[in-house]
Amino acid sequence: MPLLTRIRGPRDLDRLSLEQLDQLAEEIRTFLVDAVSKTGGHLGPNLGVVELTIALHRVFDSPKDKVLWDTGHQSYVHKLLTGRQDFSRLKMKGGLSGYPSQAESEHDVIENSHASTVLGWADGLAKANQIQQRDDHVVAVIGDGALTGGMAWEALNNIADAKDRPLVIVVNDNERSYAPTIGGLANHLATLRTTDGYERFLARGKDLLERTPVVGKPLYETLHGAKKGLKDFIAPQGMFEDLGLKYVGPIDGHDIEAMESALARAKRFGGPVIVHVLTEKGRGYQPALQDEADRFHGIGPIHPDTGLPVKASGADWTSVFGDEMVQLGKERKDIVAITAAMLQPVGLKKFADAFPDRIYDVGIAEQHGAVSAAGLAHGGLHPVFAVYATFLNRAFDQVLMDVALHQCGVTFVLDRAGVTGTDGASHNGMWDMSILQVVPGLRLAAPRDADQVRKQLREAVAVDDAPTVVRFSKGAVGPAVPAVGRVGGMDVLREPGTDTPDVLLVSVGALAPMCLEIASLLDKQGITTTVVDPRWVKPVDEAMAPLAERHRVVVTVEDNSRVGGVGSAIAQALRDAGVDVPLRDFGIPPRFLDHASRAEVMAEIGLTAPDIARQVTGLVSKLDGKYSGATAQEPEPARD
Amino acid sequence: MPLLTRIRGPRDLDRLSLEQLDQLAEEIRTFLVDAVSKTGGHLGPNLGVVELTIALHRVFDSPKDKVLWDTGHQSYVHKLLTGRQDFSRLKMKGGLSGYPSQAESEHDVIENSHASTVLGWADGLAKANQIQQRDDHVVAVIGDGALTGGMAWEALNNIADAKDRPLVIVVNDNERSYAPTIGGLANHLATLRTTDGYERFLARGKDLLERTPVVGKPLYETLHGAKKGLKDFIAPQGMFEDLGLKYVGPIDGHDIEAMESALARAKRFGGPVIVHVLTEKGRGYQPALQDEADRFHGIGPIHPDTGLPVKASGADWTSVFGDEMVQLGKERKDIVAITAAMLQPVGLKKFADAFPDRIYDVGIAEQHGAVSAAGLAHGGLHPVFAVYATFLNRAFDQVLMDVALHQCGVTFVLDRAGVTGTDGASHNGMWDMSILQVVPGLRLAAPRDADQVRKQLREAVAVDDAPTVVRFSKGAVGPAVPAVGRVGGMDVLREPGTDTPDVLLVSVGALAPMCLEIASLLDKQGITTTVVDPRWVKPVDEAMAPLAERHRVVVTVEDNSRVGGVGSAIAQALRDAGVDVPLRDFGIPPRFLDHASRAEVMAEIGLTAPDIARQVTGLVSKLDGKYSGATAQEPEPARD
Repeated sequence: MPLLTRIRGPRDLDRLSLEQLDQLAEEIRTFLVDAVSKTGGHLGPNLGVVELTIALHRVFDSPKDKVLWDTGHQSYVHKLLTGRQDFSRLKMKGGLSGYPSQAESEHDVIENSHASTVLGWADGLAKANQIQQRDDHVVAVIGDGALTGGMAWEALNNIADAKDRPLVIVVNDNERSYAPTIGGLANHLATLRTTDGYERFLARGKDLLERTPVVGKPLYETLHGAKKGLKDFIAPQGMFEDLGLKYVGPIDGHDIEAMESALARAKRFGGPVIVHVLTEKGRGYQPALQDEADRFHGIGPIHPDTGLPVKASGADWTSVFGDEMVQLGKERKDIVAITAAMLQPVGLKKFADAFPDRIYDVGIAEQHGAVSAAGLAHGGLHPVFAVYATFLNRAFDQVLMDVALHQCGVTFVLDRAGVTGTDGASHNGMWDMSILQVVPGLRLAAPRDADQVRKQLREAVAVDDAPTVVRFSKGAVGPAVPAVGRVGGMDVLREPGTDTPDVLLVSVGALAPMCLEIASLLDKQGITTTVVDPRWVKPVDEAMAPLAERHRVVVTVEDNSRVGGVGSAIAQALRDAGVDVPLRDFGIPPRFLDHASRAEVMAEIGLTAPDIARQVTGLVSKLDGKYSGATAQEPEPARD
Repeated sequence: MPLLTRIRGPRDLDRLSLEQLDQLAEEIRTFLVDAVSKTGGHLGPNLGVVELTIALHRVFDSPKDKVLWDTGHQSYVHKLLTGRQDFSRLKMKGGLSGYPSQAESEHDVIENSHASTVLGWADGLAKANQIQQRDDHVVAVIGDGALTGGMAWEALNNIADAKDRPLVIVVNDNERSYAPTIGGLANHLATLRTTDGYERFLARGKDLLERTPVVGKPLYETLHGAKKGLKDFIAPQGMFEDLGLKYVGPIDGHDIEAMESALARAKRFGGPVIVHVLTEKGRGYQPALQDEADRFHGIGPIHPDTGLPVKASGADWTSVFGDEMVQLGKERKDIVAITAAMLQPVGLKKFADAFPDRIYDVGIAEQHGAVSAAGLAHGGLHPVFAVYATFLNRAFDQVLMDVALHQCGVTFVLDRAGVTGTDGASHNGMWDMSILQVVPGLRLAAPRDADQVRKQLREAVAVDDAPTVVRFSKGAVGPAVPAVGRVGGMDVLREPGTDTPDVLLVSVGALAPMCLEIASLLDKQGITTTVVDPRWVKPVDEAMAPLAERHRVVVTVEDNSRVGGVGSAIAQALRDAGVDVPLRDFGIPPRFLDHASRAEVMAEIGLTAPDIARQVTGLVSKLDGKYSGATAQEPEPARD
């Protein structure tokens, strides 16, 4: 008899036997492979945490106790156990979010997809419990990969400081985040993993040492005094205990009984405890286990038996960049590449294979990616740091204070810029063109097609005294959009066909086809339009103001928050030039966007050709009505 | 015979005897107390690193070898030894920078004042050396306080990963940054400090253990196998070695000979090494040593004998905030406060004394400050995180993705906002009102005087479902600026005295007196002006557009980057409302500002009443010339 469908909430787990729990785990795996192969989603990570999630919900009493997930894509099993078993529209509009969601369930807390935050949240929640004298528990699950992020360290340092504040940290150690975890920490965890089980070690070691008196005292006391307990002496738990965190582990993360026992002890302890759990990403699903690159970390729809994609994917922005990097690497020995634990997703795998000495995977550590890039540049190299646009937010201060202030030639390549859609609010790359505007000297390119990606990347790495940024969208790259002319450094994509055009339409990046469509729609209304692609959106091209002055209205369209974005920058440049032509700036409204397909999101926020054409038509009509006496040859009063 | 004046560069140190080096150290201390008591500056940190700096420059060959300073305010001694001995205009316009400066010297690399970056720079430079097969050395000096920052952890994790890449890390351990260092790391360092000198321990311990065979093998081999060397077993070097970093220490940081020996060994090692050096902040200067709060971390001019300030300081923005926090703490038990290792400088000392259970010093860890605040808020409290405006850049992603996305009621209080002046480019708080514009739901207050600080802080902590920000300037708070009226939520500071005013002048925060002066200057030109203080600059008040429409020109003045700042936001709000009144936005230009007094900087960037009045007069004259036929009663075409 199937068990999963009878689980309505965590407390339904209480009455199951160990055998039933194992059966439940099997059912969940089958469910996950079946469901996620249809919708796409984060399959590998969730297959790894089935038993762990069951054990957590057996030992802790959510939602009174807070069960917190770092980088919430590992929360599918948690969803299944907390009343959410309809995965048919996972990550789709109106369906389940791919991450925890407070709107979905009272069992969810942290909604965002940015890694390494869970320990900070846990520290705050534990402090709130302490101050308000609640005896609720807080348990945080963090991957070994996420521990390489600086925020995790900052939190551990704080958590360790309060010996009397209960907090259980589960290190979900699968030796990888997207890819195998790097760095000194990874080596240290490997050492911990090889220990022969903490409990047995403890028993055996203590016995051994107590039988070995030195100068009248048991040896271990002599050597360590009161400072440290026996455990350090035997098993190299090392740094966690050095920091003052009790360490329990390593535990087999697929043995529910062992985990329940460890978690129950940790819960009782009354202070901060690390429970080190070893899991296998992709557990139980052969195609995932065989994929050494990322263990089916995040996938599109697949055939469940083979794991092969349902749709063949065409050329995408990422691979255009990746291929050009290999070419650049051949041409210039000083070019090195940096990734923050996402070699494959950001397209640097080919570069890494071709130039293994010139690729740096810094871990989930965007800050270090940017700062070490400053050092590399100062040392005579030209680093290219490829990162998802949304994750660059993590390194804003370093781009500003380390790279730009020191005039370092570093190129940041922002993948998944703009609306990405199904991964929800925190995965949209909609902030970069706003916050980077303030960085002095920084130059920002938004290529509109594959050819421009290659060209602008080359222009970017040619700059050796300032940060450069090349940002492009997620997914398939569109058709080539040829230039029909040039004004200053800007490409003209469409001439207005008149000397007295109405609208200057400024198209940013991948929105070029949409802007050409807007122009066609306006054409049908008798409104003449110039479409220009600035290519480099920061700084604003000097030719922009004189060009704008020859039009009655300026319209900007960008795939970025409209607050402080390219439209705002152009508006300011026009003001500074004394060009007061009315301007309307279209972009993403200043709110968080719910998960849905990119097209659905774009429609919902009015970033479509018909929507924009309609608004521009209205604006031009208003000007016509107001100034009907003016002829096009006369200077328009409204422009000054 | 004095030695210091004869040191023109690091190599002049080579010919000095140990006695002479000690004499040199004494001369440097006398010089520092004498010079810095006149100009103000970072006295305590530099008194602590006199011998360390001498030893570094004896062992390493700068500038071929890179000697890198974290948070460069500890670089005064380095300046003295590298040809810069005129401290008469320290931090003043045209004088020495208070931080390293590439423009000053080829011996300088990292210019910025943001902590915890040095290991990232060092990692990058060491990688550049390795790739280009240079045998130059890189040595990085980082304080124990700065090790609490996440960037340091990210860097350590990377540095430890490359056993064959030489890099010397000097941990300058004075048990404090501004104030005593907190957290698990601090406790661990304390353990290391109490060990009885690494070398002696090694010798004694090895001897002891080798004489203690267990089952035929020396005991230490039995227990630890090949994984770890003897050292771990004896002295608890702990986490550094666990990560894979060779550890040397602790070394007396005031014993030049001991440090030279340790540094020389570290230099020869051929891989990453940590040299743990114990120093005393404020060493040799009694007034500093007696100041337990911050050991004369950064001071204004003082009497050198007593250490007492030359000028009594009046009420400043910080203390107005600090006093009101105590009051709020009494009224509301749910208010807690957070500081990132700057309890005293951000004004939270009184709150901490009054409510010791409700203050959290998170270390130099702005990211954790923000994320743990989200957790505290979710747990039912209202955290107030007080931080220098420039340092909030570090937590941008956390404000956006943890606090705002999760609709947490957290109040950020930004001290030292705007032009701060003498601390140079990286200390100006000129980015916050730009980058925070993009954060959905965030409300931002810029109080203009002490009374408004108190009022707006209260309004901020009353918001429980979104981040709020209160930002104010450095130093003395100006006189009260009363409101003479109210429009929407905005204070009118001056009525235009006519129904057909020319200029709407929007004054942001502390610039209110300047804006009133601008209005007076305009008045003399026959230009009528309304001065309004929006108080909350984000979101733009709904009354702004209708008010603007009644004027011929809108002028905004803010103490923030003019890129994407309040002026841009207001311009966008007017566009959205279809109000195309010409607008001119005054603020800080998009470049890094050299150190000078605040007044000098403001003059240099044209942010003064006469400069702005002149430009506004020009603009109004231009409009008068163009539209001389229009009467004030008719709608102005230029406004649509």
